[in-house]
Amino acid sequence: MLELPQVPLPDEQMRQAALARQLRLTKPAGALGRLEHISGWASAVQGSCPPVPFAQPRVVVFAGDHGVATTARTSAYPAEVTAQMVLNFIAGGAAVNVLARQARATVRVVDAAVDCDESYVASIAPDVSRHRIRRGSGSIDREDALTREEAEAAFAMGRSIADDEIDRGADLLIPGDMGIGNTTPAAVLTGLLASLDASKVTGFGTGIDDSAWMRKCAAVRDAMRRGRPAMGDPIALLATVGGADFAAMTGFLVQASIRRTPVILDGMISGACALVADRIDYRARQWWLAGHRSTEPAHTAALAHLELEPIIDYGMRLGEGTGALLALPVVQSAIALLAEMATFDEAGVSEQDA
Amino acid sequence: MLELPQVPLPDEQMRQAALARQLRLTKPAGALGRLEHISGWASAVQGSCPPVPFAQPRVVVFAGDHGVATTARTSAYPAEVTAQMVLNFIAGGAAVNVLARQARATVRVVDAAVDCDESYVASIAPDVSRHRIRRGSGSIDREDALTREEAEAAFAMGRSIADDEIDRGADLLIPGDMGIGNTTPAAVLTGLLASLDASKVTGFGTGIDDSAWMRKCAAVRDAMRRGRPAMGDPIALLATVGGADFAAMTGFLVQASIRRTPVILDGMISGACALVADRIDYRARQWWLAGHRSTEPAHTAALAHLELEPIIDYGMRLGEGTGALLALPVVQSAIALLAEMATFDEAGVSEQDA
Repeated sequence: MLELPQVPLPDEQMRQAALARQLRLTKPAGALGRLEHISGWASAVQGSCPPVPFAQPRVVVFAGDHGVATTARTSAYPAEVTAQMVLNFIAGGAAVNVLARQARATVRVVDAAVDCDESYVASIAPDVSRHRIRRGSGSIDREDALTREEAEAAFAMGRSIADDEIDRGADLLIPGDMGIGNTTPAAVLTGLLASLDASKVTGFGTGIDDSAWMRKCAAVRDAMRRGRPAMGDPIALLATVGGADFAAMTGFLVQASIRRTPVILDGMISGACALVADRIDYRARQWWLAGHRSTEPAHTAALAHLELEPIIDYGMRLGEGTGALLALPVVQSAIALLAEMATFDEAGVSEQDA
Repeated sequence: MLELPQVPLPDEQMRQAALARQLRLTKPAGALGRLEHISGWASAVQGSCPPVPFAQPRVVVFAGDHGVATTARTSAYPAEVTAQMVLNFIAGGAAVNVLARQARATVRVVDAAVDCDESYVASIAPDVSRHRIRRGSGSIDREDALTREEAEAAFAMGRSIADDEIDRGADLLIPGDMGIGNTTPAAVLTGLLASLDASKVTGFGTGIDDSAWMRKCAAVRDAMRRGRPAMGDPIALLATVGGADFAAMTGFLVQASIRRTPVILDGMISGACALVADRIDYRARQWWLAGHRSTEPAHTAALAHLELEPIIDYGMRLGEGTGALLALPVVQSAIALLAEMATFDEAGVSEQDA
């Protein structure tokens, strides 16, 4: 089994101090609604009241291919798109790049298991390909995604990426994903960990038609059957029905919470990894906000299981970290309100009638 | 009756061009969900595809007091708070100031009918008090808020403020409000224009208790009875059960749409004024987005009547323009995605399997 430090809890006294400070700001009590709870969370995870704006939000996109996309044809796009999109991320032309610029965050891409020649990416961006665990992954409806050793290596790699980013100053982490077919293992992990039938967690991914949905649902059902015996061991589960990108993202989430570093979760992929991380340490979720709700049914199930309420709900289904990045300005605004608004005393404003 | 230019319609060809461009961006079709419609709206109101980021978003807060707050005791706060908050806006310490800084917008305050000595504000900020129509307003449950002449002057003042801001470069306008007791006339206007009973549009405002709610509901019912005969004439309606701040904001909304300038509506007050503006010209709503949904029941009714879907729904009930300002980064991000993302051709990414 995993030998990991226990995840610490955020500072509840600071959360209470934040909520108390809200009552002194020049507005009716409670008038900022949910923003008051978001800034309370920020105070708790930062151990500071008032909280400070996140200065170095960092997106790490874990890219990987999934054999099931090709063998069971569960995706609307060819697998080569994963590698092409990695280059698009590096060139700054993808949605995650645009939204990171808007939210003043930066983006890192990690090739965990892209199914392309290693030199394809390495020649352009050696930093991206350096951490690759393997090329592609097994087709989880019929074989393991990874060996045990590969899963352990991927999990450790994700942890070390979190360490690396935190050591270099990141004060908020966002897990992003890219991988044709990755909604299939995400559905499998969510079905198993949220105890739902394959038909309840299988969605339309990038936009498949009804017959592809039938194939995908059967693949999810088969993979769930294969994965169920591994449910007691998170690493075995990731090896059996996950993938190197999933194992790395799970390690990344666990290590962020061990390092007391807050996270904004993105969509279905990070939701599935969050369920695995939650199995590893139930305290980890205290360090997370749910950035958005994707249209994928498994994501709603994962959020309900984790008792997280999404900040944004716009019918998005793109991944990459885009939903979390759209939520980031809301979080920064909630922090700014608590930190910068005048109090009744400071502004000479009368308080509520007794 | 009002003699106004007809409100023009946004450019539907540009909206279609925007939706067509979405299909060429490096993402699955429809994967950005509602953001794709928001950027389509931006293209239509700007007459430009791709749209450009809004460079000069401007909040105009219309402040005014309401006699009904004092006579019927419908608010949890004393009326003096309106003037105190105007000074807080000028000093930059209110929520609207913080959120404007976050969203790179600027704030202007207009004293339409604050119930304080004119010199109180004029000595600090003559620009704020210059447009005042009168001191306070009649208690709408028993008397008219304004004379016909005052209502016309306030409506014209709001129009001239919109002209002034647009002439000085504002490319997006946000109506904000401040006024102890202003949810009472907003409930009355919404009840009349959305055909709802007083009990369905009366909310808890800044946080009143149940007995204050009973008084408020009775005042709303009485004012609705007084206002019903004026429903055929928007200016008469604003004079009878509105107030100078409501008349000014309504003029502001109408003139913005005449000037082809988009607006993000805020909460319950701007929702009520939007209903009046909609009566004046049904095309005006094409220039609006709904920034947020307030907890006030009348606001949900107004949004439904206007067929507008709020961008943000966080249980806020502060006014000032705060809900609209929280939505602004979402709008700017939607625009940036359409303008900056690489297309499949540009990025060399394969398109969906046929």
